[in-house]
Amino acid sequence: MAKSPRPQTAQELALMQGFPPPEDKLVTVANFQVGPYNRWGFQHISQILPTAPIGRGDGTAAALERRAQDLGALAFTGAGGRMTIAEMLETTYTDGFLVLKDGAIVAEQYFNGMGPHTRHLLMSVSKSLTGMLAGILVERGLLDPGAVVSRYVPALRGSAYEDASVQQVLDMVASVIYSEDYDDPRSEVAAQDRSVGWRPAQEGDIIGLYHFLPTLKKAGEHGTAFQYCSANTDVLGWVLETITDTPFADLFSREIWSKLGAEDDGYITVDRYGATLPDGGFCLTLRDLARFGQMVLQDGHYNGQRIVPARWIDETRHRGDNRLWPTDGWRALYPRGSYHNQWSNTEDAHRSFFGIGINGQHLWLDPSANVVIVKFSSWPIAWPAEGDDTYIADTFAGFTAIGQALA
Amino acid sequence: MAKSPRPQTAQELALMQGFPPPEDKLVTVANFQVGPYNRWGFQHISQILPTAPIGRGDGTAAALERRAQDLGALAFTGAGGRMTIAEMLETTYTDGFLVLKDGAIVAEQYFNGMGPHTRHLLMSVSKSLTGMLAGILVERGLLDPGAVVSRYVPALRGSAYEDASVQQVLDMVASVIYSEDYDDPRSEVAAQDRSVGWRPAQEGDIIGLYHFLPTLKKAGEHGTAFQYCSANTDVLGWVLETITDTPFADLFSREIWSKLGAEDDGYITVDRYGATLPDGGFCLTLRDLARFGQMVLQDGHYNGQRIVPARWIDETRHRGDNRLWPTDGWRALYPRGSYHNQWSNTEDAHRSFFGIGINGQHLWLDPSANVVIVKFSSWPIAWPAEGDDTYIADTFAGFTAIGQALA
Repeated sequence: MAKSPRPQTAQELALMQGFPPPEDKLVTVANFQVGPYNRWGFQHISQILPTAPIGRGDGTAAALERRAQDLGALAFTGAGGRMTIAEMLETTYTDGFLVLKDGAIVAEQYFNGMGPHTRHLLMSVSKSLTGMLAGILVERGLLDPGAVVSRYVPALRGSAYEDASVQQVLDMVASVIYSEDYDDPRSEVAAQDRSVGWRPAQEGDIIGLYHFLPTLKKAGEHGTAFQYCSANTDVLGWVLETITDTPFADLFSREIWSKLGAEDDGYITVDRYGATLPDGGFCLTLRDLARFGQMVLQDGHYNGQRIVPARWIDETRHRGDNRLWPTDGWRALYPRGSYHNQWSNTEDAHRSFFGIGINGQHLWLDPSANVVIVKFSSWPIAWPAEGDDTYIADTFAGFTAIGQALA
Repeated sequence: MAKSPRPQTAQELALMQGFPPPEDKLVTVANFQVGPYNRWGFQHISQILPTAPIGRGDGTAAALERRAQDLGALAFTGAGGRMTIAEMLETTYTDGFLVLKDGAIVAEQYFNGMGPHTRHLLMSVSKSLTGMLAGILVERGLLDPGAVVSRYVPALRGSAYEDASVQQVLDMVASVIYSEDYDDPRSEVAAQDRSVGWRPAQEGDIIGLYHFLPTLKKAGEHGTAFQYCSANTDVLGWVLETITDTPFADLFSREIWSKLGAEDDGYITVDRYGATLPDGGFCLTLRDLARFGQMVLQDGHYNGQRIVPARWIDETRHRGDNRLWPTDGWRALYPRGSYHNQWSNTEDAHRSFFGIGINGQHLWLDPSANVVIVKFSSWPIAWPAEGDDTYIADTFAGFTAIGQALA
């Protein structure tokens, strides 16, 4: 297969350059999610949207040893034939790429103007972080996965979530009238984007995440089928805030970020009511997301302390239900896979598991090789059309090859 | 004089509390500058406005030794009679208060929910930071204070700034048709606020700082009278960006913040074109602003390195022109005072000098006592009416008393 030409960088595209930049080079609420504007946008979310800090606390950063290896020449079979890691990184619009082996950095590369302190948008990798936070509160007895969501958030009575359980929300098996079609302005995900300020508001829009979520209606029976629905994670975040009486960003900082030995504060987008967007609004550095990944690989222990309960991580990895694994491309790729607690399990030879976000955001954990891979990207599309995927196929084949090479 | 009742905290006022907060408790672009909403707003600017990070870089934080003293009981004569520092702090809506003596912390107090990592809005203390950045580029030969502003920013031709010199802008003696009346929605400062998103836009507004500034017209002759005009500092920032081809936040990080041993990144508000607001948009922690102050007191040397040229600081402190010192309350308070390079010189017994911002933001440097005082506040008014001042009078009398006590 012919390789794409090398993607242009934000600087080559002259995005947001000049004092002031010309109108057609502005990155704004109206275009930051869309290629090529996302090449600048995903690294500068705080300059586009209001954000809440996720404080790293007072401690020193957890040291990351370095044992550099040249992974760029590693060859593997991608969707279109043999390719190298270096080619995969280039053709998949990579902004940042980091590999940990046994907790030490073996590769750390920045592209497209990104740097070690750039907070890059995680998109739906955010969901996997939120799932781990939920596990902490479950273990503490504050959150019952079997309880219905509306027990914790009465404002959701009358909505799809009135009788959905917390576990169903965690597993994306709530049945909600919700189109996750990013390209359709009439979809619920587009309306939700407008409600939180991720797209320009239109006449008649409901403004504010916690005004929008209660309007979502039930589709069929909960628990019977996988339905990827970003609103589920936001409902989960709302539950966590309510039971702790703590804003989500402060809660995540207190329970995870301030314990992890993160180098940098993170941040997360907020709407005009102060509601964060745990389904996709986290912005973190490459290294700090790698530290988070290593913590999960180490059964929740990192930086000299217990952060996430080992039992929650074990359940997340081993109690997913393959019968509910989506029948689209995922099942073709990982026939024995499962989705549980906001994470995807490959059940491949290395039993790798991962968080993934649109436009190429990846946190890949390979427990057999003790390898963490973080990849931030700015694909020009949100998600490949079925049957026309090289982005995910090449990326995942590359990750798998790295795990095999480092095992 | 009867003391004001203790100011209510943001929490007592229930601002931005609840998931979601009720409409009348929201802090938004429309009210964050206004009391009591500013009690929450000034500590949460990133949650209200887009912001650009001011990176602290890779180094460790410059250590601040602690030699605690009880300054709270220190008595002095304020506007209404004898009072203590503790009373002054309470009645002037203090959010954070820190005193360095010989570079060590003797007092550090937080109020109203603020903490050591909270980035508080500096308002016009930002100007004094910007002035020091200008000095670095002057010393490097990149910026000629005698040159007219439009030599560096041609877009300002035809505006008030066409023939204003950089030095006149630095000294607030450019003559501009510009009302700095924060309470008058028809004032230029209000229009500028709307142009940068600090107030809701109205029909017909010019959007974007760098579209607004060129519309300002000349009033009289430059250089003949002091005129406090926030636009001057933004023009200066525009000059600095242009000559270095570097966005202001990145430039400030590169030249100052990354060298200072700051504990936290700062941030600064940006408009939709990415223009920062150096006249008032800095948000920093209490300790980090104190470090900056100590650096200035130490003639530009701090954290083991030269940051600002000693000559620039010496000129700033000693070359101001008393004849141009404003004739309002400032001359009554400090008859021999001067304003130079975005700093005010008291020429009092200790030759203290300071940066100041509306609603009670203070960076006070007492070179005789080797004392730095930082005070963040959220006064319910922007600025006291003439003849009706206790806020500034009490605060400055308290600072002076601290300098005397610690000398």
